[in-house]
Amino acid sequence: MIHKNVDEAKKSQQPQNDAAKQQAEMDAMIKDNLAKIKNKIFVLSGKGGVGKSSVSANLAATLAKKGYKTGLMDVDVHGPSIAQMFNITELLDIAPDSKQLLPRQINENLTVVSVQALMQDKDQAVIWRGPAKTGIIKQFVGSVAWGTLDYLVIDAPPGTGDEPLTVVQTIPDAKGIIVTTPQEVALADIRKSISFCKTVKMETLGVLENMAGFTCPHCNKHIDLFKSGGGKKTAKAQGLNFLGSIPFDTRVVESGDEGVPMMMYEAPGPFKDAFEKVVENIIKQFEG
Amino acid sequence: MIHKNVDEAKKSQQPQNDAAKQQAEMDAMIKDNLAKIKNKIFVLSGKGGVGKSSVSANLAATLAKKGYKTGLMDVDVHGPSIAQMFNITELLDIAPDSKQLLPRQINENLTVVSVQALMQDKDQAVIWRGPAKTGIIKQFVGSVAWGTLDYLVIDAPPGTGDEPLTVVQTIPDAKGIIVTTPQEVALADIRKSISFCKTVKMETLGVLENMAGFTCPHCNKHIDLFKSGGGKKTAKAQGLNFLGSIPFDTRVVESGDEGVPMMMYEAPGPFKDAFEKVVENIIKQFEG
Repeated sequence: MIHKNVDEAKKSQQPQNDAAKQQAEMDAMIKDNLAKIKNKIFVLSGKGGVGKSSVSANLAATLAKKGYKTGLMDVDVHGPSIAQMFNITELLDIAPDSKQLLPRQINENLTVVSVQALMQDKDQAVIWRGPAKTGIIKQFVGSVAWGTLDYLVIDAPPGTGDEPLTVVQTIPDAKGIIVTTPQEVALADIRKSISFCKTVKMETLGVLENMAGFTCPHCNKHIDLFKSGGGKKTAKAQGLNFLGSIPFDTRVVESGDEGVPMMMYEAPGPFKDAFEKVVENIIKQFEG
Repeated sequence: MIHKNVDEAKKSQQPQNDAAKQQAEMDAMIKDNLAKIKNKIFVLSGKGGVGKSSVSANLAATLAKKGYKTGLMDVDVHGPSIAQMFNITELLDIAPDSKQLLPRQINENLTVVSVQALMQDKDQAVIWRGPAKTGIIKQFVGSVAWGTLDYLVIDAPPGTGDEPLTVVQTIPDAKGIIVTTPQEVALADIRKSISFCKTVKMETLGVLENMAGFTCPHCNKHIDLFKSGGGKKTAKAQGLNFLGSIPFDTRVVESGDEGVPMMMYEAPGPFKDAFEKVVENIIKQFEG
């Protein structure tokens, strides 16, 4: 294209410059935000439905309860559960003095952001191909006013596709927790998650076995709903830490639906004891 | 670019022509294959871990048992479970007289193809971005020697991303079954699947509620592991058929791990009775 003069030539280049400028601005915002967050925990699973979102919600709630400033970021574009688990129904607010989104303040130490909170109609399906998902994840890291945090817990969709890959590329110092249930079909999938962590060179905090064992509420006898011991065995075989086993508890299902994660209220019993131990195992690895 | 003569110009265009030719060839193969398959059932879920693969495996096994020529295609690139559920460990063979892949023959009426069967190392993570996944799904439809089938059951990953979208675009006459568990967190996700089906204009056969209720093996009392009734309520509210409720059975977990889907052997009980009813409800919609 031949331009009449320098000004017009400059004008025609503007859209391209604008995009590059926006990209550079976003990268700078991401860098700024991440510098104020001490520890980043990325909760992964190979298979869906192993309770990854429930583990993320309860992990963030427990860290906050222990006095750590904690953020929870849900980047599961297709099936965000975190909003429901914290009963977040309204859209996010924008900070008056900046262009940043305000995360939802759950209590003094806990803030939450879910992709769900950006949608007008919560039953709408997000039919997004890969590149659009990469964009929203970057926006969540850079455009949210996270502030100074001790821990950021990131809940990504299961698998080893665009979303987990984008999280690792955007937050290179995130450390992974791999959630599984005990049966072989699930374990086959977490071996893929472990291979993913190795391929992208993400440090792994360990394997957490969820829904391991259940106590019948009628006769108090033990039932292995999804078999038992597979998580520990797989962690050992792959040379990874085993963070612990969490039993199945119908109250976790109910509390997830009711909008208050189980670890946020006093519910003594095997679930709480097991979860506390797992969180201690995680904190130890950051604080030595 | 200026070419010395016509021949050279033609030569330089060849790579582009080759790609277009390959694309046209693949499209023709897909069309040929689909013309020989009478009914296509696409098993979807909004959320992972609701037993979608287990439902797909048992649905295909039941249709085959009833005498229908049935194919089962697993396109869950990141977490393929179907290979494990049918104990398929080796790679697929290539037909000697054509370039097509041979699906695994499970019994007289049932053939299976899983993305797992194309991998040398089964614990390898498939870190593929969207476009690569679209390619392999098209290849599964076009390059596999499915032959003449009454039913093709397609098991896709949960959510509403690249894979389900590609299935719908490649197999436009597929009819959807939406699998869920009864709790609200799962139901929120299937409302997204229903919205997805409406957006892409895919006809829906109905909603199937899985893991609905459990009988304690010790005291025989009933336990609602994931609450109850939510699937039926959601189907009704959205104006969809309710295909039925399938109870949780630890034998389904075990049989999935052992490589023989529960419906392939004689295991009388509530699971079998409920599953038979669901399959009858599905067949009725195709045969009127």
